[in-house]
Formats: sequence, C-alpha cells, structure tokens
Amino acid sequence: MARKASLSGFPEWLPEERLVELHVLDTLRKTFELNGFSNIETRAVETVSHLLRKGDIDKEVYGVSRLQADDDGARAASAEDGLALHYDLTVPFARYVVENSGHLAFPFRRYQIQKCWRGERPQDGRFREFTQADIDVVGDGVLPFRYDVELALVVVDALSALPIPDFTVRVNNRKLAEGFYRGIGLDDTAGVLRSVDKLEKIGADKVLSLLQAELGATAEQAALALRLASIRTADTSFVEQVRALGVSHPLLDEGLSELEQVIAEASRRAPGRVVADLSIARGLDYYTGTVYETVLNGHESLGSICSGGRYDSLAAKGNRTFPGVGLSIGVTRLVSRILSQNFTAVTRRVPTAVLISLTDDSSWSAAQDIAASLRGRGISAEVAASAEKFGKQIKFADRRGIPFVWFTAADGTHEVKDLRTGAQEPADPATWSPPAADLVPRVLRAESGGV
Amino acid sequence: MARKASLSGFPEWLPEERLVELHVLDTLRKTFELNGFSNIETRAVETVSHLLRKGDIDKEVYGVSRLQADDDGARAASAEDGLALHYDLTVPFARYVVENSGHLAFPFRRYQIQKCWRGERPQDGRFREFTQADIDVVGDGVLPFRYDVELALVVVDALSALPIPDFTVRVNNRKLAEGFYRGIGLDDTAGVLRSVDKLEKIGADKVLSLLQAELGATAEQAALALRLASIRTADTSFVEQVRALGVSHPLLDEGLSELEQVIAEASRRAPGRVVADLSIARGLDYYTGTVYETVLNGHESLGSICSGGRYDSLAAKGNRTFPGVGLSIGVTRLVSRILSQNFTAVTRRVPTAVLISLTDDSSWSAAQDIAASLRGRGISAEVAASAEKFGKQIKFADRRGIPFVWFTAADGTHEVKDLRTGAQEPADPATWSPPAADLVPRVLRAESGGV
Repeated sequence: MARKASLSGFPEWLPEERLVELHVLDTLRKTFELNGFSNIETRAVETVSHLLRKGDIDKEVYGVSRLQADDDGARAASAEDGLALHYDLTVPFARYVVENSGHLAFPFRRYQIQKCWRGERPQDGRFREFTQADIDVVGDGVLPFRYDVELALVVVDALSALPIPDFTVRVNNRKLAEGFYRGIGLDDTAGVLRSVDKLEKIGADKVLSLLQAELGATAEQAALALRLASIRTADTSFVEQVRALGVSHPLLDEGLSELEQVIAEASRRAPGRVVADLSIARGLDYYTGTVYETVLNGHESLGSICSGGRYDSLAAKGNRTFPGVGLSIGVTRLVSRILSQNFTAVTRRVPTAVLISLTDDSSWSAAQDIAASLRGRGISAEVAASAEKFGKQIKFADRRGIPFVWFTAADGTHEVKDLRTGAQEPADPATWSPPAADLVPRVLRAESGGV
Repeated sequence: MARKASLSGFPEWLPEERLVELHVLDTLRKTFELNGFSNIETRAVETVSHLLRKGDIDKEVYGVSRLQADDDGARAASAEDGLALHYDLTVPFARYVVENSGHLAFPFRRYQIQKCWRGERPQDGRFREFTQADIDVVGDGVLPFRYDVELALVVVDALSALPIPDFTVRVNNRKLAEGFYRGIGLDDTAGVLRSVDKLEKIGADKVLSLLQAELGATAEQAALALRLASIRTADTSFVEQVRALGVSHPLLDEGLSELEQVIAEASRRAPGRVVADLSIARGLDYYTGTVYETVLNGHESLGSICSGGRYDSLAAKGNRTFPGVGLSIGVTRLVSRILSQNFTAVTRRVPTAVLISLTDDSSWSAAQDIAASLRGRGISAEVAASAEKFGKQIKFADRRGIPFVWFTAADGTHEVKDLRTGAQEPADPATWSPPAADLVPRVLRAESGGV
C-alpha cells in the first residue's frame, strides 16, 4: 500500500500482497462452506432498469456499452444496451433467485465473492472496484427468524479467523425502532430513522433539531427517539432499558424479542463481539427486521466492514416472495487496511519451495524429473533455466525468495541447501520434504501491527 | 447447461454447476502454484487508449462510464472517462509489469484467473463474459528459450488434471514460418501467415489463390508455403520434412531448432499430447517465436481451449523491454463443454455433510455446539431451524442433498443416520467423521460422457 493505484479507486496488489488477499478469501470460503453455504457467481452486468429499481444510486453506477455499434460504426451512447456493472451482490442475487427458483432447494444458503463497482469519489477504505463476500439464506415464502441469529454467528466465525484486530458486530432491529417511533406518535418512521442515522456525523443536538424541524416531533418525542438510539449493551439488558422508556407498541415487542434472541445467543457464544446498538439504522430501504454492521475496534473511521440485515421481500415472482437474511463483508476495505497497517507477515512471496539447480546445460530434463517428483508430493518446485555458476543460481533463488536450492552431483547424489541457514544436507527426490512450515507461503498475524 | 442464460453470452451456473467450475479453478491454481507461479489480479478496466493499442478489436470492447456525470447531471458519453473492460489478461498484465517493475523479481512467473469481456456475437463456446486462466513468465531484457519448453509442460500438467477428454497442444514457431517464407522469396510474411491461417476455414485451393492474387506469390511459392503448413508430427521428424523442402534461411534454422526443443522434451514427457503443427499461425501480432494452441480431441469445433506464445517485447519502459512467454486457458469455454457433455458427476450439491436435527425448540443452541465441534474438525454442518417432526427434518436434509442427519436423544446420546443407506449408528460430536469420500462434495469424471 505504499504504492499508489495507477487509476484512482482501482487498487492492484503486488504478488506478496495478493497472498494476503488470497488468505482472506480462502479463509472466508472455508468458514462459509463449513457452515453449509454453497457458492455461486452472477454476471458482472445487470440491466440498468433492474439496478436502479432498488434506490437512488444512479450516480454511482457504471454503464457498459460496446465502443462501436455493429453496423454503421457509430459510437453507441452510454447504456444504450441498457447494461451496467453491479454495485453490490444483493441485487444480482435477488434476480438469480427468481430466475433459478425452480432449480434451487430452499432455504437456499449461498455465499458469493465477487468484484463490485461504484463510481464514487475514492477515499480511504472506499474504492471504485472492490471485492465483496456475501452470505445469505433465502426462503421460499417464509424464513424462520433463527437464521437471523445464525448469520450473526457465522460472520463472527468468519471474521475471527481473519488476521484483523478485534471487531464489534452492532445489531439493531427495524421493527423495534419503528414500533417505538409509532408508540410515541411519530409515524414517518423512515424519516426518523434517516435523522437518527446521522447521530454519529452531526451529533445529538442537531438530530434533535432535525426531528422537530423536519418531522414535526415535539421536544419530548425527539428526546425519546434519541434516548432509544443511545442504548447500547453487550448483553440483553437493553430490553429493560427500552422498557424503562415506557413506550408500548406490538411491533416494538416483536423487535425487542427478536433482537433479544440474537444477543442472548451471541453473547453466550462470542462474548463482547456482538452488541445491541439501537442507533444502527442502515440506509437501505429493503431491510425489514434485523440490521447488522461491524467495525474494527480502533478503526471505526474505516466504516463498516460487514453489514446486512433481514429483508422480507427482496425478491418476488408473481405472488411468491423470497424473504432472506444476509451479510456482506468488504474484502477490499479489510485487505487494504491489513496491508497499510501491517497486520500480517508473509513467510515468503513465491509459491516455490525449491529451485532445482543445473549442473550442466544438458541436465535440464533430468532436473524436470526431480521437480515433477517433488510436485507429485505437493512441493512447489521450479527448475533453473540455465547452468550458470552455482553461486549465480543460488543468488537467483534468493532474489526470488525461494528458500531451498537442490543440487545433483555428478555421481547422481542429491543435496538441498536451506538458503536462510546455509545448512546443506543429502536429499532423495522421492522422499525429501521441506519442514511443514515451509511447504507453502503462509500469512501470519504480525507480532507488531496491533492485532 | 439445459438452462439458457437470461442475458445472451453471460452464462451463470447453478450451485452444482459452480462446483464443477470451482473444481476446475482449484485444480489450475494448484498446478500453477506447484510450478512456482505467483497469483495476481488486475483491475477490470483499462484506459481505452491502452486497450486499443494492441490491435483492431475496438468493435469488441465494452466501454465503461458513469451513468450520470458529477455536476450537471448530464449523461456522460460512452467512454468519456476513457475506460473499458479488458478483453484479455495479457494486455493488463503488460501494463502491470511496467508499472510495478521495481517491485517484481524477474523472471516473474505469474498466473492470473479473471473474467474478461468481449462484445462479440455469442455462440457455442464463445461468450461475452468469460473466465481466462493465464500463466506467463516475463523476463527483464532477456528470457531464456527454455521457458517456452517449460510452459508447454505446465499446461499439459494443468489440462491433464481436469475432467476433460484427451487434448492436443499444437505448437509452431513464427521464426520458422517467417524464415521459410523469406527463404522462398515471400517478404510480406505477415500477409502469408494471415492467408495460411485460413487453411482450415477455406481449404487449400483458396489459400493458394489468395497467396497468388493478394501477395503476388508464384504458383511454386504458394505451393511451398502450403506444403510447409501441411506438416504435422508428434515427434521431431518435422525437422527432416521441412529440410526436404530445400529452403534455407537463418531465421528458419533458428525456428526449427526452437520448435525441435519443445517437441523433443514434450514428446518424451507427454507422448502424443504436444505436436508440431506448422499450420498454426495465431492471429495476434505480438507473437515473435513459439505459438501454441490446444484442441479437445473430438471437440475441435469448440476452437482452441488454451493458446499463447512468445512475445519479445509485449511491454517496454523506456529502452527496457520485457520479453515473455505465456498461455491462456479458456475456463468458461471448457466448463460449458464439461457441463453440456456431462463429463463430470458431483457427489452432492451442497457443502453440508450433516444436518443437526432438533429434538425440541430449546435445543437449538446445544445443536449449534455439536455443529461447532464438527466444523472444528473440518466437517461442514448446519442446524435445523425448527423442531419439526423428525420425518420432516430428514426430508429437509434429503431435499437439500445433505447425506447425514444427527439426532440427540433425551438422555444426551447421539446417533447419525446415513440417508442413502438408512443406516443409523451411535456417534460422538468430538470424534465422529463421515467417510472420507463424503467429507466434501467431489467432482468426479463421469463414467459415461466420453472422458
């Protein structure tokens, strides 16, 4: 991350940085599959009409169109084909579920790890091209609430396995907030949510003014809305705190009970990592119950690294609806922070464990046999391209970051040199292995770096 | 592949089809890493000027631009930002090498597996969005010829590990062809190559006419060019056959010697899989020596599934050039054929090995403990969402394709049922494992399907 992207907002990693990203991706994949999620990919483009249906974000969407039209050679206008790059994985997934509903077994548990694109102004942790890792469970008609609890546990599992600092998953519930607002007589619940969502940015006083000026709340109503948003507990004591505000509404009861289930189970399994935070609103309109967002402790300014929620009808096909609950991890945001803060150390920067050196130029084919034997046992090997002096071949390996060099003597015996210690020992192509720690490059949590 | 893509040319796979694609991708990655190739990714977009520098393919390029401009809200014209989706991975890689040359150790061995986009008319094996898997070795100033030999061996390794029919890597050498044409007095070697490249499409007679009409060749020159193109051998006997044509040129000698090295080594290590085919031209102008293409035997009409070659100066930075040799595997083309021809069978369609059933609704948390214990030992598990009758829970697992169901009795003992055999046996969460063959979904070569 010392280097600057040659195109602002489109980061590219060096090979050793990509090892860190691959480690993150492999770890997420493994966790998701252990939890029974199937992988899919959707195409990079959606029709513009499908993309824009979901909200007012057209300024951020990249249209896609062929540079030249078929026949007259005239340059096609942007989005004439009506295609655009997806800006998240939820909207494409909704389409995929509807199109393939006849081929999927519900509840459908899927993970999806792909690039997304948004034409926003790039800034720290915000990119124009970025990778998201999504998990969702989608039901056919109904989806038990328990999946809301489960998904919080899955992301705690997934994030805990990554080389990042401690994190906090903040959970709220739309029903709880909406029921509370209705209970105190504020019926424009979306408007109240929007105002409360600005709490961290503009402060309590300004939110109070907003609620009164724009939503016609009384001073008392505004104060109550703000008191709700200030509740934050790592256990289920938020229930009592809300009850103490003396508000009553059936939707509030439902939301309290749902959030209580999430926090009760999560605080038991992962104490302190999942908190009830009644200020969390999440912008997207399609959430209807649980909402999640996640911050890296000490890196709150980075923004949320994992967000999502419950949506009762993200997708619909005729009168059939597909409710779901899901979360999306910002992989590029995380990886860029891991790299810039040196949260990790990589044991080497190439997959190659051994360079097979050449005694003379005619031994290249025999050296390939040795390499093939090692590869057959899972050991990454490459063969020197020419029979330079051994010193030069060793230097070549060292410069590339390859830890071991293989030598074959004229009498057909073999030795392997560990370039880090200088130790050289007899070896047999059919049995030699590097120490387990040197088999493949490994990504370790750095001792320093605050992890 | 029974389903039709909802957007022509943009295929999307069902979860069980994606398992096949993942198997292909994982296999390629493993082979490439065992051979010492490092992974990188480049951004999906390049500047239009960089993309179009490499040839007359602008009709196929997808421009990218934000649907709305920043300030005046006017719709931006296509490619006003000057960005377009990459249509291959070679052109982006050339830029990456130049931009990062100070951070890379040469020769730089990299693999890159990403989506590419071309606005072509979709047809069998030809898509608008498709995944390519590229390997290249790039040197700083020089790159020994031996890498041309090595890369042929690496792709044979990689393709041999895939669930596909036998294949043939056809190799030619531009120097050989160009030296031969010059040797017989045809100096527009690019023009001759273009004509000879049409051999399979338009036949020998028409190529003869083309050479005479468009390139001013005599009947004798045209006949000789065609005789060269008809040479095809699985061993190094092509050298004698070319020599027998009585043509002499230093470039021809160089090309013959290079191609001989590739075929000699490849025919020793992978008999019959790599052949010298002197009709192979490959369209791209930047190849300067070895050229490769690959067909699936019996599926020649699919086109090449793996192509590439040597380029002496794909990238340059001031007076510094970066010669390379590389190959690109058409993953989507291969996967679509694997799926449509049923070359594979998948042992199950979900990662989940075990469904933990619920005895009563309050046992969900305890069931999560069992699942966590299994996951800790690498066994994919999910927990039933509600305590329906056991028959319903079993049906749920069966419908999702989960092979095992876990039961916990009131006395705290556990049993596991194999839904395929009906056998039910005592089990311990701390030690039970499914048979190794059932640990994860596996992609097998189908018994039928011609593999």
